[in-house]
Amino acid sequence: MTDVKGLTQLGAETRIPASPEEAVLETVPYTRGEGPAAIVRFTCPEFTSLCPMTGQPDFAHIVVDYAPDARLVESKSLKLFLFSFRNHGAFHEDCTLQIGRRIVEATKPLWLRIGGYWYPRGGIPIDVFWQTGTPPEGAWVPETGVAPYRGRG
Amino acid sequence: MTDVKGLTQLGAETRIPASPEEAVLETVPYTRGEGPAAIVRFTCPEFTSLCPMTGQPDFAHIVVDYAPDARLVESKSLKLFLFSFRNHGAFHEDCTLQIGRRIVEATKPLWLRIGGYWYPRGGIPIDVFWQTGTPPEGAWVPETGVAPYRGRG
Amino acid sequence: MTDVKGLTQLGAETRIPASPEEAVLETVPYTRGEGPAAIVRFTCPEFTSLCPMTGQPDFAHIVVDYAPDARLVESKSLKLFLFSFRNHGAFHEDCTLQIGRRIVEATKPLWLRIGGYWYPRGGIPIDVFWQTGTPPEGAWVPETGVAPYRGRG
Amino acid sequence: MTDVKGLTQLGAETRIPASPEEAVLETVPYTRGEGPAAIVRFTCPEFTSLCPMTGQPDFAHIVVDYAPDARLVESKSLKLFLFSFRNHGAFHEDCTLQIGRRIVEATKPLWLRIGGYWYPRGGIPIDVFWQTGTPPEGAWVPETGVAPYRGRG
Amino acid sequence: MTDVKGLTQLGAETRIPASPEEAVLETVPYTRGEGPAAIVRFTCPEFTSLCPMTGQPDFAHIVVDYAPDARLVESKSLKLFLFSFRNHGAFHEDCTLQIGRRIVEATKPLWLRIGGYWYPRGGIPIDVFWQTGTPPEGAWVPETGVAPYRGRG
Amino acid sequence: MTDVKGLTQLGAETRIPASPEEAVLETVPYTRGEGPAAIVRFTCPEFTSLCPMTGQPDFAHIVVDYAPDARLVESKSLKLFLFSFRNHGAFHEDCTLQIGRRIVEATKPLWLRIGGYWYPRGGIPIDVFWQTGTPPEGAWVPETGVAPYRGRG
Amino acid sequence: MTDVKGLTQLGAETRIPASPEEAVLETVPYTRGEGPAAIVRFTCPEFTSLCPMTGQPDFAHIVVDYAPDARLVESKSLKLFLFSFRNHGAFHEDCTLQIGRRIVEATKPLWLRIGGYWYPRGGIPIDVFWQTGTPPEGAWVPETGVAPYRGRG
Amino acid sequence: MTDVKGLTQLGAETRIPASPEEAVLETVPYTRGEGPAAIVRFTCPEFTSLCPMTGQPDFAHIVVDYAPDARLVESKSLKLFLFSFRNHGAFHEDCTLQIGRRIVEATKPLWLRIGGYWYPRGGIPIDVFWQTGTPPEGAWVPETGVAPYRGRG
Amino acid sequence: MTDVKGLTQLGAETRIPASPEEAVLETVPYTRGEGPAAIVRFTCPEFTSLCPMTGQPDFAHIVVDYAPDARLVESKSLKLFLFSFRNHGAFHEDCTLQIGRRIVEATKPLWLRIGGYWYPRGGIPIDVFWQTGTPPEGAWVPETGVAPYRGRG
Amino acid sequence: MTDVKGLTQLGAETRIPASPEEAVLETVPYTRGEGPAAIVRFTCPEFTSLCPMTGQPDFAHIVVDYAPDARLVESKSLKLFLFSFRNHGAFHEDCTLQIGRRIVEATKPLWLRIGGYWYPRGGIPIDVFWQTGTPPEGAWVPETGVAPYRGRG
Ligand SMILES: [Ca+2]
Ligand SMILES: [Ca+2]
Ligand SMILES: [Ca+2]
Ligand SMILES: [Ca+2]
Ligand SMILES: [Ca+2]
Ligand SMILES: [Ca+2]
Ligand SMILES: [Ca+2]
Ligand SMILES: [Ca+2]
Ligand SMILES: [Ca+2]
Ligand SMILES: [Ca+2]
Ligand SMILES: [Ca+2]
Ligand SMILES: [Ca+2]
Ligand SMILES: [Ca+2]
Ligand SMILES: [Ca+2]
Ligand SMILES: [Ca+2]
Ligand SMILES: [Ca+2]
Repeated sequence: MTDVKGLTQLGAETRIPASPEEAVLETVPYTRGEGPAAIVRFTCPEFTSLCPMTGQPDFAHIVVDYAPDARLVESKSLKLFLFSFRNHGAFHEDCTLQIGRRIVEATKPLWLRIGGYWYPRGGIPIDVFWQTGTPPEGAWVPETGVAPYRGRG
Repeated sequence: MTDVKGLTQLGAETRIPASPEEAVLETVPYTRGEGPAAIVRFTCPEFTSLCPMTGQPDFAHIVVDYAPDARLVESKSLKLFLFSFRNHGAFHEDCTLQIGRRIVEATKPLWLRIGGYWYPRGGIPIDVFWQTGTPPEGAWVPETGVAPYRGRG
Repeated sequence: MTDVKGLTQLGAETRIPASPEEAVLETVPYTRGEGPAAIVRFTCPEFTSLCPMTGQPDFAHIVVDYAPDARLVESKSLKLFLFSFRNHGAFHEDCTLQIGRRIVEATKPLWLRIGGYWYPRGGIPIDVFWQTGTPPEGAWVPETGVAPYRGRG
Repeated sequence: MTDVKGLTQLGAETRIPASPEEAVLETVPYTRGEGPAAIVRFTCPEFTSLCPMTGQPDFAHIVVDYAPDARLVESKSLKLFLFSFRNHGAFHEDCTLQIGRRIVEATKPLWLRIGGYWYPRGGIPIDVFWQTGTPPEGAWVPETGVAPYRGRG
Repeated sequence: MTDVKGLTQLGAETRIPASPEEAVLETVPYTRGEGPAAIVRFTCPEFTSLCPMTGQPDFAHIVVDYAPDARLVESKSLKLFLFSFRNHGAFHEDCTLQIGRRIVEATKPLWLRIGGYWYPRGGIPIDVFWQTGTPPEGAWVPETGVAPYRGRG
Repeated sequence: MTDVKGLTQLGAETRIPASPEEAVLETVPYTRGEGPAAIVRFTCPEFTSLCPMTGQPDFAHIVVDYAPDARLVESKSLKLFLFSFRNHGAFHEDCTLQIGRRIVEATKPLWLRIGGYWYPRGGIPIDVFWQTGTPPEGAWVPETGVAPYRGRG
Repeated sequence: MTDVKGLTQLGAETRIPASPEEAVLETVPYTRGEGPAAIVRFTCPEFTSLCPMTGQPDFAHIVVDYAPDARLVESKSLKLFLFSFRNHGAFHEDCTLQIGRRIVEATKPLWLRIGGYWYPRGGIPIDVFWQTGTPPEGAWVPETGVAPYRGRG
Repeated sequence: MTDVKGLTQLGAETRIPASPEEAVLETVPYTRGEGPAAIVRFTCPEFTSLCPMTGQPDFAHIVVDYAPDARLVESKSLKLFLFSFRNHGAFHEDCTLQIGRRIVEATKPLWLRIGGYWYPRGGIPIDVFWQTGTPPEGAWVPETGVAPYRGRG
Repeated sequence: MTDVKGLTQLGAETRIPASPEEAVLETVPYTRGEGPAAIVRFTCPEFTSLCPMTGQPDFAHIVVDYAPDARLVESKSLKLFLFSFRNHGAFHEDCTLQIGRRIVEATKPLWLRIGGYWYPRGGIPIDVFWQTGTPPEGAWVPETGVAPYRGRG
Repeated sequence: MTDVKGLTQLGAETRIPASPEEAVLETVPYTRGEGPAAIVRFTCPEFTSLCPMTGQPDFAHIVVDYAPDARLVESKSLKLFLFSFRNHGAFHEDCTLQIGRRIVEATKPLWLRIGGYWYPRGGIPIDVFWQTGTPPEGAWVPETGVAPYRGRG
């Protein structure tokens, strides 16, 4: 059974942190066992932040894949961290990389990649893809399979 | 065999008309025959005009269904008419209705409907749907089946 | 067991008729039985004819629905009839209606409809829809469900 | 709890009947309760019979919708009845209607419809649609939603 | 703001009820306002019960549409009610109708319909569709759009 | 050319209103012309509000269809109105109906309908559908075609 | 013919084991023959377990690929093993790895991988991917092709 | 022109062989020409055999890719060979490998792979993938692209 | 601007060549510039030839990818070349390779591949894949993404 | 926060440049940080230029992936650059490569690739794919996933 002592957010009604800086990414211990690393994927189709130039909302569909080493991200704290961008102004490239780097810092995984698929502004969507290096030897890392943007018709 | 005399654009290399007003919608004779009216559908996934407020391009996927009575639209002149909006400034609602009404005027059909599916601006697409009345009795008028806009993810 | 006497094409290797006029639509007897009319659908994704203006090939996906009364279309003769348009020049509207009317003539059905979904020329496809009237009372006539043309992307 | 006494096939390993005539469609009692009739749908994507002309296998995807009155079809006997066409020669129209009429006979439903979507032979598939009349007043009868045949590409 | 007094399950960690009979469907007050009735849809792709004959699990995708009159279903109590079938043995037809009738009893809606799309057993899935009558005049009730079963390939 | 005098938001950089109450829905004049009413559709795949019970974000895909009479909704003010729900707490049913009723109030259309397709919480999404009455006689109102929720796999 | 002696569950009505520990994974002998290893894939779209924190049901779509060496998994015992998680509480990562490791232990395959695609909780689904190493040289291992989660719209 | 002498089945009405052993896989000569090997793909969505334990029908969608060296499989004899499994009892793994090995034996190809995608029994489908080695150097071997099984909903 | 002198077919109404041998593949000069080779893809969903055994029409969806060196295929002459197979009898394997080799001969590209996806005959489609070698170093060659054949249902 | 000083187009209403030569691609500073390069993707489903032979409009769906080094493309200037092809005549191959090379020149990225998916003319679409070399070591570069052209049906 997973060791859950020390978790402060799971099972409690928790408010959205006011900013990504205030959000706390909690973790739980994980034992890798034999064989290549396992890969864990989080999908967040409901990400929203603000445009730093105009103050208008931006929206994205975010996919994170990582290979945990000794710590797992606790999923409720991850959700609150993602929600904390709600009133935060940043460019698409910066938001995406910031999410990836924070999870790296919290869990020190063997490997992580993040894809940010942003909704179009002015008809042209931007996607941002980043990973910490090549995937762990022998691990199975499927495509994210997110459909490309195609306008109308 | 369809009567093609009087057609001036078919088979010749023709330049794009400078405006919808300059474009000429040519027609060919049509005989309805027995039974309910036939329905003819044109699909134009390549429509473009300009925004009257900002001068920036707008894009749409256009579908026209009509029930010809005694005249068919000649398809090359239709294409040139649609291309003539390329440097024309008008709102989505106005463009869509103008196309529908011009084809009505040229062919005096039993019935016509037009759907304009406009590409998103600011993340929110607009669709415009218009028809001249209920379809002719007994005619078969399938759905256009254009997929709804769904953003990303 | 269906009565197949008099059929001349089924089971023999038959050449494509030189024109639609030379093609023979054969039929077999059919007994309607109790209840509303049954609907029979043929789908031909491989129809081809020639453009009467330019002599170049045209292609279409054809769907025929009909409610047989006392005769069924024999399917091999239908196939040969459809293949007979291969070197025949006619406009999209004319081809589609000619196919529909020939099957009506051969089988005298309770009802028939035909949809011709033509491949694009110059970026704008044409669809032609025709039926002999409203479907027979109580019969089940599903949508053809053919996807609309959407260009690229 | 449904009354299952008298069922001879459910729970036993039963061989496929040699022909549709030998197959027995068993039923269980059903109580309609208040409100409009309920609709029950069986889908069989694995139907196979033989062509009566050539002896070669035919394949179909079959959908049956019916509104039970006082008897439900027992699903294992339905499966065996459908499997009994495996070595039976009949035209598409006949097979489809025979299935529909046998279920009508066994359950005396308020209403039934059947769709037979046959695999293409020679590139042209045949679909057969039949129902016993208009659906019961106030009942909900969704489309079967089977995708149309589209060849390749 | 919706009146939430009297709700006993929302916001508390609640165990799954041992049976549908023990589950309590809670409701909140609703005011209809002007115009035709609004339609509310719940989708549960995660329904599971047991087969009464063999004790093995059955699975279904359930869609409920209803037109509330003076009470809304509280969504957490609905979820627990649906989860309470987890160790309950009943035929597909009975489960589906029982869910529909319990929501009718709890909310006394203007109208309700339920679709139960059951996973295949032995290759043949069963769907069950029921509604309390024709939808309220002027209300908008979209199709559920659940894709039909198609086997493999 | 559409009369744009009096518009205060189009072409200017405008901040998100603090609440739906503060947002102003601006309109432009519209002339209906001959024939049945035209239908205009807005799609917003980027709607977000807050849950009134937990303060956590809710997300929805919103589709509005309306038949303008003498006024069109100005699209930038509509976008700002929709964005104003960003920090507003309300139940799904209330949010959806409030949007619909505000557009009715601002444009006094011949007819309007709204569909709110809410993202799942706890695995069960809620959809809300409302319209002001039956669509205007002879108008063309296509399905919204939003895909149903289906979980995973 | 496969050697089936010693199988205790196939052909008998067997109850669901009370826990994964009680479940017995039976195997049958397999001869590899010439050439690279064959790959066998099981897909289980109907997996369900309980959340160890809240006791509520979790759902997953599971795909297992393995390269048998001298033993095949007997499919009915696999099904019962999977069903045995029905009342078992474990995190997503643990469940997925436990299934994979048990099949490895029972069949000592050349290679195995498992993908667990879990239904969303709180809007964010988790997928878990694990394999025992790189696939056997020269074997053909297709993608699982499971569609990514995309919320609504 | 391909050399067709010696073919005994093409152009004749041929009965289904009683078993795979009785079926004869005929071949025609093939000249490879310059450059890497060409790949030929057969798709059979209509494969059926019998379960050796219960005698009930099994169904599969089969895809064969091979790189011919000096002989091509004659397609009619391949079809009859596949149909010969109709009353043959064998496990999924055995059937799939037997088909692959027989084609190897008949054509001595540079390379061959076979995918057997079996319809679900008890809700869990099995796929079998095998190839004779790594594909020929420089050849183009696309994915089969068969969609994964996903149950209902 | 591309050098178009010497082109004889572009801009003129040209008849379909009587055979592939009579068709002339014209080319235009091309300058590669820095970096890896560019890849150009032609898609022809409208290919048709005749079966050399029976004289009946065959249909295919053809995709050609090539890396031009110093000459581009002129697209109108390519279209006429493809249309020239209309009354030409050849096996699927031969037609596909003949198209590929002719383009190689005309343009002497760095690399070329061709995929021929043939419509089913007797329920079993054939695909043919060929390339001149491994793609040029550093070039981007996407999958063709043609959907596999899947029969009905 | 990204450094935006020196940007002249963002936040201002800017007219479409008269030609690609007049368009200015602006950039903003970017810091790569640790780990492999991030990949940024722009999708433009609304590209249009003119055919240099006939003066008629051409349309394309364009996808650009690049790995920024020290500069990002400013997205509004990119949009205006793309719009500047509106009245520019050039072949598909030239347009596509020109876009790619201009972004390379402006941002001096670690790597860039561009895909131009052009709408069909005469039934045969052309796609153009180019990249500056192999992607940066360790970077994640997903497929563009644009659906292949498939004509009708
Ligand atoms: Ca936009
Ligand atoms: Ca936008
Ligand atoms: Ca979405
Ligand atoms: Ca075209
Ligand atoms: Ca498009
Ligand atoms: Ca096609
Ligand atoms: Ca099954
Ligand atoms: Ca199938
Ligand atoms: Ca959920
Ligand atoms: Ca599912
Ligand atoms: Ca959720
Ligand atoms: Ca099953
Ligand atoms: Ca065929
Ligand atoms: Ca066939
Ligand atoms: Ca075309
Ligand atoms: Ca087709």
